[in-house]
Formats: sequence, C-alpha cells, structure tokens
Amino acid sequence: MPAAPSRMLASDNLAGAHPLVLDAITRANAGHVLAYGNDDFTRRAEAAFNELFDRDVRTLFVYGGTGANVLALASMLQQAECVICTNWSHIHVDETGAPERVLGAKLLDLPCADGKLTPGQVQAAAGARGNPHHAQPGVVSLTQPTELGTLYSPAEVRAICDTAHELGLLVHMDAARIGNATAALGGNRVALRAFTVDAGVDVLSFGGTKAGIVFGEAVVWFDPRRAQRAEYLRKNVTQLHSKMRYISAQYEALLENDLFIDLGRSANAAARALYDATRHHASLGLTSPPAVNSLFPTLRDPAKSRLQEWSFFWDWDAAAHQVRWMTAWDVTASDVAAFAAGVDAVLVDAPKF
Amino acid sequence: MPAAPSRMLASDNLAGAHPLVLDAITRANAGHVLAYGNDDFTRRAEAAFNELFDRDVRTLFVYGGTGANVLALASMLQQAECVICTNWSHIHVDETGAPERVLGAKLLDLPCADGKLTPGQVQAAAGARGNPHHAQPGVVSLTQPTELGTLYSPAEVRAICDTAHELGLLVHMDAARIGNATAALGGNRVALRAFTVDAGVDVLSFGGTKAGIVFGEAVVWFDPRRAQRAEYLRKNVTQLHSKMRYISAQYEALLENDLFIDLGRSANAAARALYDATRHHASLGLTSPPAVNSLFPTLRDPAKSRLQEWSFFWDWDAAAHQVRWMTAWDVTASDVAAFAAGVDAVLVDAPKF
Amino acid sequence: MPAAPSRMLASDNLAGAHPLVLDAITRANAGHVLAYGNDDFTRRAEAAFNELFDRDVRTLFVYGGTGANVLALASMLQQAECVICTNWSHIHVDETGAPERVLGAKLLDLPCADGKLTPGQVQAAAGARGNPHHAQPGVVSLTQPTELGTLYSPAEVRAICDTAHELGLLVHMDAARIGNATAALGGNRVALRAFTVDAGVDVLSFGGTKAGIVFGEAVVWFDPRRAQRAEYLRKNVTQLHSKMRYISAQYEALLENDLFIDLGRSANAAARALYDATRHHASLGLTSPPAVNSLFPTLRDPAKSRLQEWSFFWDWDAAAHQVRWMTAWDVTASDVAAFAAGVDAVLVDAPKF
Amino acid sequence: MPAAPSRMLASDNLAGAHPLVLDAITRANAGHVLAYGNDDFTRRAEAAFNELFDRDVRTLFVYGGTGANVLALASMLQQAECVICTNWSHIHVDETGAPERVLGAKLLDLPCADGKLTPGQVQAAAGARGNPHHAQPGVVSLTQPTELGTLYSPAEVRAICDTAHELGLLVHMDAARIGNATAALGGNRVALRAFTVDAGVDVLSFGGTKAGIVFGEAVVWFDPRRAQRAEYLRKNVTQLHSKMRYISAQYEALLENDLFIDLGRSANAAARALYDATRHHASLGLTSPPAVNSLFPTLRDPAKSRLQEWSFFWDWDAAAHQVRWMTAWDVTASDVAAFAAGVDAVLVDAPKF
Repeated sequence: MPAAPSRMLASDNLAGAHPLVLDAITRANAGHVLAYGNDDFTRRAEAAFNELFDRDVRTLFVYGGTGANVLALASMLQQAECVICTNWSHIHVDETGAPERVLGAKLLDLPCADGKLTPGQVQAAAGARGNPHHAQPGVVSLTQPTELGTLYSPAEVRAICDTAHELGLLVHMDAARIGNATAALGGNRVALRAFTVDAGVDVLSFGGTKAGIVFGEAVVWFDPRRAQRAEYLRKNVTQLHSKMRYISAQYEALLENDLFIDLGRSANAAARALYDATRHHASLGLTSPPAVNSLFPTLRDPAKSRLQEWSFFWDWDAAAHQVRWMTAWDVTASDVAAFAAGVDAVLVDAPKF
Repeated sequence: MPAAPSRMLASDNLAGAHPLVLDAITRANAGHVLAYGNDDFTRRAEAAFNELFDRDVRTLFVYGGTGANVLALASMLQQAECVICTNWSHIHVDETGAPERVLGAKLLDLPCADGKLTPGQVQAAAGARGNPHHAQPGVVSLTQPTELGTLYSPAEVRAICDTAHELGLLVHMDAARIGNATAALGGNRVALRAFTVDAGVDVLSFGGTKAGIVFGEAVVWFDPRRAQRAEYLRKNVTQLHSKMRYISAQYEALLENDLFIDLGRSANAAARALYDATRHHASLGLTSPPAVNSLFPTLRDPAKSRLQEWSFFWDWDAAAHQVRWMTAWDVTASDVAAFAAGVDAVLVDAPKF
Repeated sequence: MPAAPSRMLASDNLAGAHPLVLDAITRANAGHVLAYGNDDFTRRAEAAFNELFDRDVRTLFVYGGTGANVLALASMLQQAECVICTNWSHIHVDETGAPERVLGAKLLDLPCADGKLTPGQVQAAAGARGNPHHAQPGVVSLTQPTELGTLYSPAEVRAICDTAHELGLLVHMDAARIGNATAALGGNRVALRAFTVDAGVDVLSFGGTKAGIVFGEAVVWFDPRRAQRAEYLRKNVTQLHSKMRYISAQYEALLENDLFIDLGRSANAAARALYDATRHHASLGLTSPPAVNSLFPTLRDPAKSRLQEWSFFWDWDAAAHQVRWMTAWDVTASDVAAFAAGVDAVLVDAPKF
Repeated sequence: MPAAPSRMLASDNLAGAHPLVLDAITRANAGHVLAYGNDDFTRRAEAAFNELFDRDVRTLFVYGGTGANVLALASMLQQAECVICTNWSHIHVDETGAPERVLGAKLLDLPCADGKLTPGQVQAAAGARGNPHHAQPGVVSLTQPTELGTLYSPAEVRAICDTAHELGLLVHMDAARIGNATAALGGNRVALRAFTVDAGVDVLSFGGTKAGIVFGEAVVWFDPRRAQRAEYLRKNVTQLHSKMRYISAQYEALLENDLFIDLGRSANAAARALYDATRHHASLGLTSPPAVNSLFPTLRDPAKSRLQEWSFFWDWDAAAHQVRWMTAWDVTASDVAAFAAGVDAVLVDAPKF
C-alpha cells in the first residue's frame, strides 16, 4: 500500500478546529465576564446572526447537535404532537432516542429514497390531525444536507414549508452541515437565506462542530416570538453552558467573512476531487458527483477491510456493501490523492463480481 | 470608590480557563482523530481517573454540570423511583427542572439548615419504600461542597452511604466544585478518596468547568458494572460530544499534578483572605471563616447596590438581605484587597440598623 | 370487644357504588353505541356539567384521579414550567411520581401546617419566574378538601386565584372529594360555584370514585379555550376509555338531583357523629369537629392495634401516633355507634400518658 | 334500504358488557372491601389467571388498553432502549403517542404487509445493539390478532421469541382481542398457552374491554420476577384503580368457563357469516375468510356512504377505498343477515369499475 493520507475520510467530526476559531477561544479566555451569555462575546455573536440572516432573529447557543435539535423541537411542539421526518433522519436514526426521551413525542419517520421528504408525504401524514387516536403531526423536520449527502433545493424547501404552513405545521431544519449546504447552493449569504428563512423555515439548527469549531451549536428562531420559552427550555434540556463566551467567540469567528461557507466549500471540493479520482473504478458505483462532502461507494471485502485498516472510514449499509467516505474542511488535495492511490491499490486485485 | 478589582467575586464560572488547560486544547487540535472518545486523549484521561481513585473506575465525559447529574441519576434510578436531596440542592433549585424532565422522576427535596442531609432524613424518607402509592426513594444525591458553602466530612458522607446502602439505596455525589472540597478536606488524592469512593459514594459528578476549564464535566462510576447502560444514556440525554478529544485533553491537564486541587486551594484561600479583610464589619455577619470559596454576608441597600454596581456579585436571599461573594481559581490577593477596600468604602457611611 | 361495624372507617374508597349509579350502568349496557364519547350518554353528562356550573364548560371523563390531575396539569403547563402545591398534596405524596413522569415537570411542594397554601406562598414561589435557572412556576394546584380534612373557604380560594392570575399563573383544583366540600360549604350548586369557578379556578378535577361511583373522574375546564389540546392529551396520557357511555352514565346519575352533594353530606354527617361519640376520650385529641369526612385522632398501641384488627383503619403519622378515621357515603349511624363502642372498649383500659 | 341491523359492525368496542359480567359488578358492589386490590375478588381473579396459564404468573389489572401496553413495556425496557413493532401496530398508530410520552422511548415501527413481524426483521433491527448512536432495541411487541385481522401461528410467535431471546430482547404481546385469537387458534386453554407462554412471550396485555366487559385490562408477567417494579409502575403510569374489586370481579366472570373464548368465538363466527353472505360481490374483494372478527372490503362512494349512513362503520384506508367491518361478541345472525341485505341493496346499482 502507498502512504496513507494524513487526514482520514471517516467523518467531518474527525477534524480539529480552524486556527481562527482556536484563536478566538484563546482571546476570549482573558479575565472575568458574566456567565450564561450575559457578555459581549455573546452579544456580538447574536448580532452576527442577525446580519447573516438580515433580520432580527433569536439565536441561542447550545452544546451539541442533538441538544440543538431537541431544544428547537421542544420549542415548536404542542402537547400530544409528533414530528414528521424521514427514516434516514439524524434525529430518528443517530440520536439514541434522545428526542423521544426528552420531548416525550413520537418521531413519525417516513420512508424516502434519497433522504428527502416531499410535500405529498407531509400532506398525507397531516391527515391524522384532528383524530384523537393518533399523535398529531405538528412539526416537519428536514435535514439539509441530508444524511445521504443530498440537498433540498430552495424551491423544494419552500414547497414543503408552504404545505406545512397551510396545514398548520411548523418547519424545523437540522443543518449540522450548513456550510456545506450553503457552499453547494450558491456559496453566499443570499444563497443561505434562500433555502432557510426565505423558503419559510421556522427554526434552524445551525451546525458549528462539523464546520470547524471545538464545540457548540446554534439554534435560530426566525420569528423571535416562537422563542419565548426557549431560554428556559435550554437549561431544561441540559444545554445551557455557563461559560458561554467560549461558544459565542467561536461563532463570531465562524461567521466572520463567511468562514463557515469557505470551510464547507473546501470540504465539498475535496469530496468532488475524490470522486474524480476514483470514479473510474466501476465497481464503486460512483455514478454522479457528490452534492456536498460525502460519497457512498460500493466496496467489498477484502478490498474494503484492507482500505479501512490503512485509513479508516465507516461502513454505511452493510447489506448493500456500501461505505461512506466523508471529507472535512481540512482535507487537502494530497490527502485525496493519497487516498485515491490506496483505492487504486486495493481495487487492482479486487475480486470481480 | 477605590479602583474595582480586575476579577469579580460573582461566581467561579466567571473565570476563564487555566493556561495549562488552554494549552491542552491547542495541542489536541492537530490532525484527525476518531470521534466520540475513540482516541488517545480520552484513553489517557480515563487512565488518569483510574489513577486518581486508585482503582478501575468508569469515566464518561459530558458537556455540562446539569447533564452530568442527569446522566449519573439516570444510570442509578429504577422505574418509579425518586431522588432524595435537600431543598437547597443544585439539581432541585438551579437546573430548571431538567432532572424531572429528562428523568421523569421526582426529586424529594428535604429541608435542611446548612445544605446538608442527615442519615436520619434518609432513613425517614426511605420509609416510603414498599408503598405503591409513593414514589420510591432509590438514590440519595449529596452536593459537595453544598450550595451554602458547607462541607460534608468524610465521616458524614460515610454515615449517609451506610444508611442508604443498608436500605437498598444508592448514593450520588454532585461535586461541581470538587477541587475546592478536596483542597479543604486535606488537599491530596487520599483526602479526595476519603470523602468519595472510600466513604461509599456510588457515582460522582466530577466538576471541571468551575475548576478552570473551558467546558466539560466527568461522571465517574466507582463500580463499573453500574455503568452498563451509561454509554447509551449519554447520547440519550444529549450529552455526547463528537470531538471528545477536547474534553479529554482538558481533563488530562486538570488532573496532572493535581492541578484541580491547586486551583481549588487558590480559590479557597482567596475566600479566606476576603473573610479576614471584611469580617470587622459586624453588619456583614461573617462569624466563621468560609469552608471553601464562598461567603454569604448580610448587606443592605444602598451599600449593597453601590457595591454591586462597582463590582458585580449576586443577591442570595433577598428576604434575609444576604448576598454571595464567591472566589474563582484566578482571584488574586490584590483583587481581594481591592474588593475589601470597596466594602470599606460603602460600609463607612452605611445606615446603622 | 363489641360487634364490629358493618362498614369500615378506613377510607371512602372502600365503599361500593350508590344504587342509582349501578342502575345507570345497567341501563347504559343495552345495545350498541359509538365509542370514545360519541354517544348520547356522554352528551347528556356534558350538558349536566354545563348546568351544574351554569355556563358552557368543557368536560372530559377519564379513568382515575391521578389521570384526571395529570390531564388537567398537562393542559395547563407550558414548557419548562412547574406546579406549586403543598407538601401534603395528593399529587406530590400519593401518586407515585406519576405527575413528574408523565408531565416531565417539577412539583414545587411548599410546607404547610394544615394542607393549605397561602397567597403569600404563591407570590414568593413565583419570584422564580423570569430566571432561566429555575423551573418556572406556571400552575398552582389546590386540593379541596385538603388531605388533612381541612377546607379552603371561597374567599381563600379567590385570594389565591387573584394572586396567581396577577402573576400570570393558572389555578388547578384537585377535588377528589368535591361532594364533601360542597356539602360542607353550603350544600348546593351556588356553594359549589362559589369555591370553584366563581373564585377563579381555571381547571377542576371533579371526583367521582370516592363520591360513590364504580370508576371514572371528570376534568372540567371553565374556559373551554384552555381545553384545545385536551382531547388529544387524554389518550396521550392513557386516560381515554373506549366504552365511554359507562362513565358518562354514572356521572349523569351522580349529578342528577345533586346526588353527589347528598352523598358528601351523608359522609360528613357520619364523621361528625363519630366525633361527637368519641371526643370525650381526651387522649384522642379531637378538639374540633371535622370539616368534612375525616378525623385524625391520636391513638397508641396496644389500643390502636386492637382497634385496627377489629375494624381496620390506616395509620396516618406514625411518629405522631396519629391515625385516620374516614367515613364513606354509606356509613350509617349504627356503624358509627358500633365503632364508637369499640373505641370505648379499647380506651377503657388504655395506658395513661 | 331494508331495516338496519340492531347492532353495528363498526367496532367491538360498541358492544355493551355480557350479562354475566354485569352481574359480577352488581354482586361485587355490596359492602366495604379494602381498596387497591387487597380484596378477595382480586385474589380470586389472580388465581384464575394462574389456572388459565397453568403456572404462577403475576397479574395486574389496569384501566385501559393503552395503559396496559405502557405498563407492560415500562416494566420491560431498560434505559435508552426502544421497542420493535410494525408500522400497523396499535401502540404506534392508535395510542396518540402515549408510549413515547410515558416511556420516553422510541417505537421502531417496521414495515409489514399483513400486520406481522418476522424473525428476520427482529434480527436486522437488533443490529443496532451495542452502537451508542442508536436507540437500543430491547423489546419486541407483537399484536395478536393484528390490527389487520391476521394471526400469528404459535410457531410464528415462537420463532420470533426464539430470535428475540437469543439476541437478548424480551417479547411483549398486545392481545386486546385475545378471546378472538384463542377461539381461532384452537378454542381452549391449551391453544391459548400455545401462542403465548408456551411460545416464549414474556409479558402479555390481556384484553377485557373488547371481549365484553365494562372496563379494565390485565397485564400478565409469565415470569413474576420481571414484575418486581410493576406494582409501583402501575400507579406511576396513572393506571391503578382504587376500587379494584370491580375490575377483578369482571375478570373472574370473564375467565370462568372460558367465557372470553366463547365470546371471541361468537364474534369470529359472525364475521365469517358476514363473509359468506357478502363475498359474492366481487367488488368487495373478499377473497379469503376472516381469521378473526374483521373484514376489510373495498367499497366506493356512493355505495359506501349510503351504507355508512344506514349502519355506521369506519373507513380504513381511504386511498385504497378500503373499509372495516368488525363484529362484536353480541352480533347475531339476524344482525349479519340484515347488514348483508343492506350491502346487497347498495351494491345492486353500484357503479361498475
């Protein structure tokens, strides 16, 4: 095998933080400031979110992605309501039942081919509204980009929001990889707004950890009136950090000069480069370029195991022999080249099927 | 008024992180490591906890103090059980109902004069066991040091643990300020063990944030068999950080050479110095030195407000005209001197009662 | 010992159902009717509640008392809110933590001497509103009559409701023994309204089981707009009966000609007769007549145990040697006379203190 | 239209109680007995369940079917576990999210064609065990008969139980219509045991309401050690009735001489008679006789609406033009004949497709 890449393609949470983010933490460390967000770092970060979305939003910082989703949903759900999502959604599959535990609410996971809901599915599910024997659909939760590496276009988000709102439902967007989505859909603030607030999304989980910070996520209410209980809820769901300045300072750095979009663009580009460098292996089944920063090639043993031992990545769908390659913001062209060389090495003598 | 101190006496969570901790974060930032704790930083931090307690414990890192308590209690409670605590306990008063929400369990808050439970209270409350009409006491939760700045002696902890265990209950210790407690009770690892594992505590919330780190708390199960569900529970209660290395690296720094004890000792000493510098004001009612890092003087307006505007601190019990002065690890002798000068200034012309 | 009474004085839930109630069940049994309350029995029972309170209320029938309280409170609480109650309240002491489990909310149990809250306590507790570190008081829950056999006067209820409403809180009344309370406070519908809707109570748990029916409780929302989620919540908290006609028919019988008030009056009278027949034993400490249907005499062994073995009743406060004698709707004058004779028998040779 | 039947075919919960059950309530009404199950009625009913299953089981009576399922599952789930069920299961579709609310646990609803799970599905879902990012499958919940009117054979139940137990999971059976299932699978106690305890089921929700009683369900733990927390849990989930004798007495009547099997047989026979009397209408699509007491014919407007207005029944799957006809224990041959005559009347001139 050739030399393994310096950075793995296992997940975007294997990367460290961007130097500007680390600098922000170091600078925020000096002296005493009041706790729980009553500090200038937090005020500046909140202002930065207002600028980002070009309106007065309500932004609360939390510890992690599951916490962000749980807080957002808790602020949106009424009694006896449930959440419409896909059977691939992170809240359904990858949060160890935290939403059900903390919300006490059902996640109505609808089947999907590509990680995306449709307005028709929302409409059908909402048929349960008014029937006291069924959990009442109250919130639609979209993931952008999806867990399958696909994207909702602004028009698709808008169509779902329109349907939801007509039916009396609210729309949550889980955007743990919002930099990747923004980079892919236009790469600037106008593009970001187009698939979030301008499309009708009500509450947004705005990811930071996967975008290149140490810890901390943000929840953004586009209509601040919906956030009336949110400040209490944040601690009520264990997500209030006392030394808030550290999260706020990181977000200030992340939003300054659209750093999060740049980092998303970088990760997306690495995934595209990887696609270009490996698609010639027909057995991988890489028939279309990645929308964002992940590829889902088909790979069988022993090639798969050899490659994983050399530079780790995760299995995705064992039954389908599918794995996931995912790039982080810091993956370089030489990492990609090194990894592709490894793919070439293991697939040269791969058994033919 | 004289010049205000550089650091406030409002809370120990107003302080930044210790330089060694910040260095640890910076060093941990390089390159890719696996997420969720499958990394060498975490393995070393876990080993450091084993050494600290001189046995194989199970340690899980979480985001925050409320999360640590909720995770610990969730792993200890059986169905339909409740938690015995005091009416001053942080889990009861200061966590916005998070334990009730996430655990779905009652906190049985017993009245206390000094923040401390007694074996007799545990015994009396446990009388409900076996009666299907009452929530079943299953866990005793102690805070060490208490919210009122008092300490359980090792013998007091042991007496409660013995009573609890005889009755079939487990004991949790919420030690958000464990460095302060350890410093006050002997100042070394033997002293730490004496009031925790050697006294019979089953599960420990081991504080880090107030001890001088950026974020992250630890939960320690002294009998690893009690932690069988804990790894699932951590994400189930929204407390699993993906980039675990950052918490682990901070804890490695915090435990190395007993840094957390040193920082606790420093904060305690500052509180003692403040006591010595202000006790001559009889109206403050400071009749005994602080056990750890907080003082609860009596202070009335306008002196109180003048002092708060000059260097902020929190009201404690408004009805009793009691405030709280609390020192952090970084409060210096000159901070204390400056603050005491301010006290002198406002009390010189304070109204006599 | 003389002959034991035919009916025990252990609790009002030891009695069977009144014959008119049983007749109602038998009559309701014929033929098919739609399930879940879409039937004429339920429509008539709902109308009976409107008449009872002389306005359009919203009434939902549930299975049991704990379920009624949980449904009422679930409909009243906002996110991160808690319930103010006394440390003697049934929801706090006698429901095995069901409110905390199902509501995920704290019960803030305040100390009381006589089972009753005061407006001052409500005001003090509500001081936590607006502070994101504390569970937010949102509902005051009163028990009428209290678990200690005392009563709130209409003026006392009104004072609490006024205080609560001024502070933005709602008021729930748990009236599992509403017939006893009504009989004691005037004995007619005007009296009932005076301490409930006219005093400002928002939602009422209207007891049936202890008043002489087989099963079933009612929850009454005086402002139907507060009941918007209630129909969904009822099943969401496991309290929707499919064959609703059986509960409805019992309530129709219970409200017709104020049967529930008559039965409450009867039980109260029996308690008063028992008081008159036993108060001459100074050791019992019965210094004032019962407000409703329970007495809490002091009784020590061996007299206590001899009496309990002969005709069972419950210990109340073992430490204080207090027991509870409670009369049901069907307790007769001869039951009282027989029981009093037993008391005379065991106390004749009781040890003197 | 001909004369409508005296009894509707809308659901088995439209029927009243069997006369023997009503007699049992009336007989149980006399005098005082202790509350909460400490009475001879309950002891006899518990003994009847031991006899029914020919071993020492633990039986607890609750109010309703949702409560029975929630209690059973609460006693079976460990922390952070979830429940495997089908996307048609009553707990998932028809309980308004009560399981998620009260259990705080995910229901993992798997797709199925006929209401039935397979061992392969259990095995695949259990693949999540050990992965801390996924809710941990801990219990398999089967419905017998299923919501689609199908039955698991004893061998099918056994295969699922064997798979589940090998993987460390427990098996719950929701048998709200256990009389129907037993009648269809052999019609005696041996047959009942064959698809429950002998097949490996761990905990059983044993239905009563749909079988012909006024209210009350039973939960049966075949291994009483699994019921250790159950008595506390019952009140903890709002399902403990004070006047327990009324539920117990009904169950005594229901089990005596296998009344519940007879009533199930009667309902099944009525459904079969209806099938025989209507299957000649090819448009109904009734190609196989009912396994138990429900038919799911295809019926379009205006025939459907005309028939529903004449004798009500529920739509089932509006998109597929499917309705549900369901027989209760009291549906007679002349009810069936009358209904079939109505079907003939509306289908004579039904539009041809």
